[in-house]
Amino acid sequence: MITPKSPTKTSSKVTTSGTGDLSTEEFRAMGYRLVDWAANYLDTVGTLPVLPPVKPGWVRSQLPPAPPSEAESLADAIADLDRIITPANTHWNHPAFFGYFSITGSMPGILGELVAAAYNVNGMLWKTSPAATELEEVVLGWLRQMLGLPDGWFGIVHDTASVASLCAIAAARESLDLKIREEGMAGRTDLPRLRMYTSEHAHSSIEKGAIVLGLGQQGVRKIPVDSEFRMDAEALEKAIREDIAAGWKPFCVCATVGTTSTTSVDPVPAIAQICKRHHLWLHVDAAYAGSAAILPEKRDILAGCEHADSFVTNPHKWLFTPVDFSAFYTSKPDILRRAFSLVPEYLRTSADEEVKNLMDYGVSLGRRFRAIKFWFVVRAFGVQGLQSRIREHLRLARELAGWIDASPDFERLAPTPFSTVCFRAHPHGLEDGKRLDALNEEVLEKVNATGRAFLSHTKLEGKFTLRLAIGNLRTTEERVRETWALLNECLKQAL
Amino acid sequence: MITPKSPTKTSSKVTTSGTGDLSTEEFRAMGYRLVDWAANYLDTVGTLPVLPPVKPGWVRSQLPPAPPSEAESLADAIADLDRIITPANTHWNHPAFFGYFSITGSMPGILGELVAAAYNVNGMLWKTSPAATELEEVVLGWLRQMLGLPDGWFGIVHDTASVASLCAIAAARESLDLKIREEGMAGRTDLPRLRMYTSEHAHSSIEKGAIVLGLGQQGVRKIPVDSEFRMDAEALEKAIREDIAAGWKPFCVCATVGTTSTTSVDPVPAIAQICKRHHLWLHVDAAYAGSAAILPEKRDILAGCEHADSFVTNPHKWLFTPVDFSAFYTSKPDILRRAFSLVPEYLRTSADEEVKNLMDYGVSLGRRFRAIKFWFVVRAFGVQGLQSRIREHLRLARELAGWIDASPDFERLAPTPFSTVCFRAHPHGLEDGKRLDALNEEVLEKVNATGRAFLSHTKLEGKFTLRLAIGNLRTTEERVRETWALLNECLKQAL
Repeated sequence: MITPKSPTKTSSKVTTSGTGDLSTEEFRAMGYRLVDWAANYLDTVGTLPVLPPVKPGWVRSQLPPAPPSEAESLADAIADLDRIITPANTHWNHPAFFGYFSITGSMPGILGELVAAAYNVNGMLWKTSPAATELEEVVLGWLRQMLGLPDGWFGIVHDTASVASLCAIAAARESLDLKIREEGMAGRTDLPRLRMYTSEHAHSSIEKGAIVLGLGQQGVRKIPVDSEFRMDAEALEKAIREDIAAGWKPFCVCATVGTTSTTSVDPVPAIAQICKRHHLWLHVDAAYAGSAAILPEKRDILAGCEHADSFVTNPHKWLFTPVDFSAFYTSKPDILRRAFSLVPEYLRTSADEEVKNLMDYGVSLGRRFRAIKFWFVVRAFGVQGLQSRIREHLRLARELAGWIDASPDFERLAPTPFSTVCFRAHPHGLEDGKRLDALNEEVLEKVNATGRAFLSHTKLEGKFTLRLAIGNLRTTEERVRETWALLNECLKQAL
Repeated sequence: MITPKSPTKTSSKVTTSGTGDLSTEEFRAMGYRLVDWAANYLDTVGTLPVLPPVKPGWVRSQLPPAPPSEAESLADAIADLDRIITPANTHWNHPAFFGYFSITGSMPGILGELVAAAYNVNGMLWKTSPAATELEEVVLGWLRQMLGLPDGWFGIVHDTASVASLCAIAAARESLDLKIREEGMAGRTDLPRLRMYTSEHAHSSIEKGAIVLGLGQQGVRKIPVDSEFRMDAEALEKAIREDIAAGWKPFCVCATVGTTSTTSVDPVPAIAQICKRHHLWLHVDAAYAGSAAILPEKRDILAGCEHADSFVTNPHKWLFTPVDFSAFYTSKPDILRRAFSLVPEYLRTSADEEVKNLMDYGVSLGRRFRAIKFWFVVRAFGVQGLQSRIREHLRLARELAGWIDASPDFERLAPTPFSTVCFRAHPHGLEDGKRLDALNEEVLEKVNATGRAFLSHTKLEGKFTLRLAIGNLRTTEERVRETWALLNECLKQAL
């Protein structure tokens, strides 16, 4: 409990508890309680409804509209976790969370966040946390080696791939040497129209990055995909030539290794050739699938990436690290730095010549000590442990794909190169596209309403498509099998 | 310890520990150990050197260059915290950390991060975590009330004020209705040159935001300040008129409540009038000083902010919340949404019409459950507890300012409206500016080299200026008094 200190009292004898924070004893007691709470949550999360059966506004209605004037016991807040938060949460750590990309906040990673918060550093400069700056460098070196990416790439952790890709496009823009940093783009008569390229299946964050950077939606040309949802490299080459002829200045291509809808892999080697030919920045978004390259047998998914100017993959997606941890690499850190560095007097240090200050390589000045959680994860699992779990997820996805392929009532709608399966119900004789869409939407809603599993959807060639993404450590074959049975049951009900 | 599972084994009987994560027992054991570790760290951090006496490369040299192939015990990683990380860390949670803006990762906030990591949600959509979405709304409502800001403002949490201010400028740009979202800015002949305004003392993130958004450094005109480092409103008006006459299109003013160097407060009421007259977006950066407005006697620092279009303040600076937690508000959420929203098929939900999906209001798609830590902090301290601690920090700064003013050897170089004191050594008879700068740089280095306190610096009117910022819960009057004695001692050594 907090003892608010009178503002008029002098404070020369203040003790820890007198500072207004918890006492050490209370911290221990509440800390143990929350460790128990987390252990119990992780043990039982599989029994909870994955999607909470709450209506918009329910959480708000359970909370006081105004803040408490006086201190409350933290025990009351902990009790409210179970009363308000857990029942209204979507359980991403649930073994049957199969939506979007399924993720895991693993136990070593969770404990790493506790440590980071206790240190509470702002690693903007080397000087403001040598440990945070250098541990980030070391663990990103580890990850780079695990993925077989080139030596010497510079790495930095961002919160999300959205931000990492924005940084990549910003560096690409800066590499044009058009004085955009100094003079901006608006109202200049000496600038060409700028264009970047990505596939129709690229993540929305690429287009959002272009919007934010002032390149506009028209500054992104979306290249068609082949029958397996991979960027058509010939179409890319053609588009670039057309645009050059029409007066555009192409400057960047974003290839995807593991697209969001189907996890397709763009032909990076061919795209890299095209980039080289036209002097374009090549950014590779491997946010989800990059992690699979820690398997020797999957290493080839990164073929061609050695030519990339920048590359992003998210250990918070498929390497069991709690959000947020997005690993961004570039072979051209000087250009990245030119795009972002601004050093006011109050941030100059005597070490600036010999160190990297991470604030110079992105938008955010402040940065958390994110490296600790990833360090804990890699050490606690070991590379072999991480590999075996990703192999298992790939195996589970192959199993499910096999059941779908063998079923008369379902069909796969895309290849399954990783742990995400795209499919739909397609009972014999039902060929009307609209009715099939409505049927699948109904199946999805029925499955999700049971709370026993959560899947999300996409559209492929206009077809409403179910997506089942496997990525949680607690997901077992039994869970996948149960969900397959549930899908079949819900289809029967919907017919 | 991890038991890597063979990839060929079927997994229908996998137990928790068989998933490759820690067992529940191990999690409890390691969790308790880390709670004890954190308790001990927070108890003893005041005995550590604030700045670590390490050379660049030392941390890296202590770590294996390659990741471990096999699982290690997490106990080994915990031991390495004390062996490698703590000795090479800059201790922001130290009671004598007085650099930049001093902050606190308070105990309730630290425990909140543990909870957030255990849930490990991605709150991009309401559906993907109703609890995270609505708790964020509620606690930002609490903070809004604590600060006396207008009802009805929309709030969202970002990682840093850098990102929040970028969002503000992006919304201002979008409010121009110049089709910048659709068509971008490069190579268009129908756009005027765009300009925004901020003071010479604004934070570097404002200029960085303009660079990122493609407005360029020339798109930011820096307005001179008065003798107390506040934006000169008349000079602002004059600059806007000049720019309009010269063909620029002014679109945004960023005022600062609590500048980084001196914590000066721009005249927001007058600036708001100017913005209204010229139809400019008014963004207020109150990242540091905003927290002081929870005191009734300091509420007037936000005078005029009720007219702002957007506003940012950072509870991770002076409201005892671990980084990262930056609170961003806008009275024009529809424009903010127009600047950022992009909804691909796979992120559409049936609730979209009745809820706010937080991904629509910023750059990052993914978002952590940051609201929990702030919720824990406000409940555990109570508003009165937070107020009393901020009052105490203000009192300590006034005390120090008094000692400086009474000293023949030191002088203050700026008013002290909050908890940050700007001053320098200025012994009688020493009037040479260069020698004074060198002397103060030496004093600063000597103080910081002792490890007993850490101060940072700035330059004011060309003068090398020492900054002592008070903001940590563990900072007592005794610590401030000791640091004052240390400054005097180091000055004697330097003379």
